Amino acid sequence: MDAAADRGADPGAASGVDPAVAAELGRLRHSIDNMDAALVHLLAERFAVTQQVGVLKAAHGLPPADPAREAQQIARLRALAVDARLDPEFAEKVLAFIVAEVVRHHEAVLRDSAS
Amino acid sequence: MDAAADRGADPGAASGVDPAVAAELGRLRHSIDNMDAALVHLLAERFAVTQQVGVLKAAHGLPPADPAREAQQIARLRALAVDARLDPEFAEKVLAFIVAEVVRHHEAVLRDSAS
Repeated sequence: MDAAADRGADPGAASGVDPAVAAELGRLRHSIDNMDAALVHLLAERFAVTQQVGVLKAAHGLPPADPAREAQQIARLRALAVDARLDPEFAEKVLAFIVAEVVRHHEAVLRDSAS
Repeated sequence: MDAAADRGADPGAASGVDPAVAAELGRLRHSIDNMDAALVHLLAERFAVTQQVGVLKAAHGLPPADPAREAQQIARLRALAVDARLDPEFAEKVLAFIVAEVVRHHEAVLRDSAS
C-alpha cells in the first residue's frame, strides 16, 4: 500500500486502492457510523437512568456498587452475547468498563450529597 | 414489591430499605437491563460489520488501524454525545475501548491471512 494512503479518512482516495474496494469500505463505514450514533444515544439514555439510580441510592444510604447485581448483569449479558454471536468476553469487558464509569459517577454523587 | 421478589440483587430485600425505594430501584434496573440487551445486539451487529472491514482490509493490504478515520469518528461522536446530553469524555472513552478491541481483532485476521 502507498504511504500516502493514510493522509485522509478514505483509504481509497489517496492510495490508488481499487475503487470498488474503496466503495465497499465506505459502505461498511457508513453502517458503522449509523450504529455508533445509535450507540451514543443508547448510552446517553442508559446513563440518564443510572444517574437516577445513583441519586436514589445516595438519598437512601445504599452503597454505589452492588456486586450481586453486577454479577447477575454479567451472566445475563454473556448469555445474550452468545445468542447474538458476539464474543462474550468482549461484551463483558465493555459492560465492565461502562459499569465502572457509572460507579465512579455514583461515588461523585454520594460525595456531593455528603458535602 | 414483595420483599422476597429479588433476594439476590435487590439491596432492599436484605437491608430493610423502604419497599417504595426498592420498587423504584427495580423499575430503573429493568430499564437498564432492556437497554443492555439492546446494547449487546447493537455491539454484535457493529462487530459483524467491522469484521467485514477487517477481512476487506486484510485482503487488500490495507493497515488494520486508520488514525485519520478514528479521529473523524471521535470528533463526530463527541458532537453526537453533546447533542444527546452524554458526557463526551465518556462517549470517547467507550468508543476508544471498542475501537481498540476491533483493531486487535483486525490484527488477528491479518496474522491469520498471512500464515
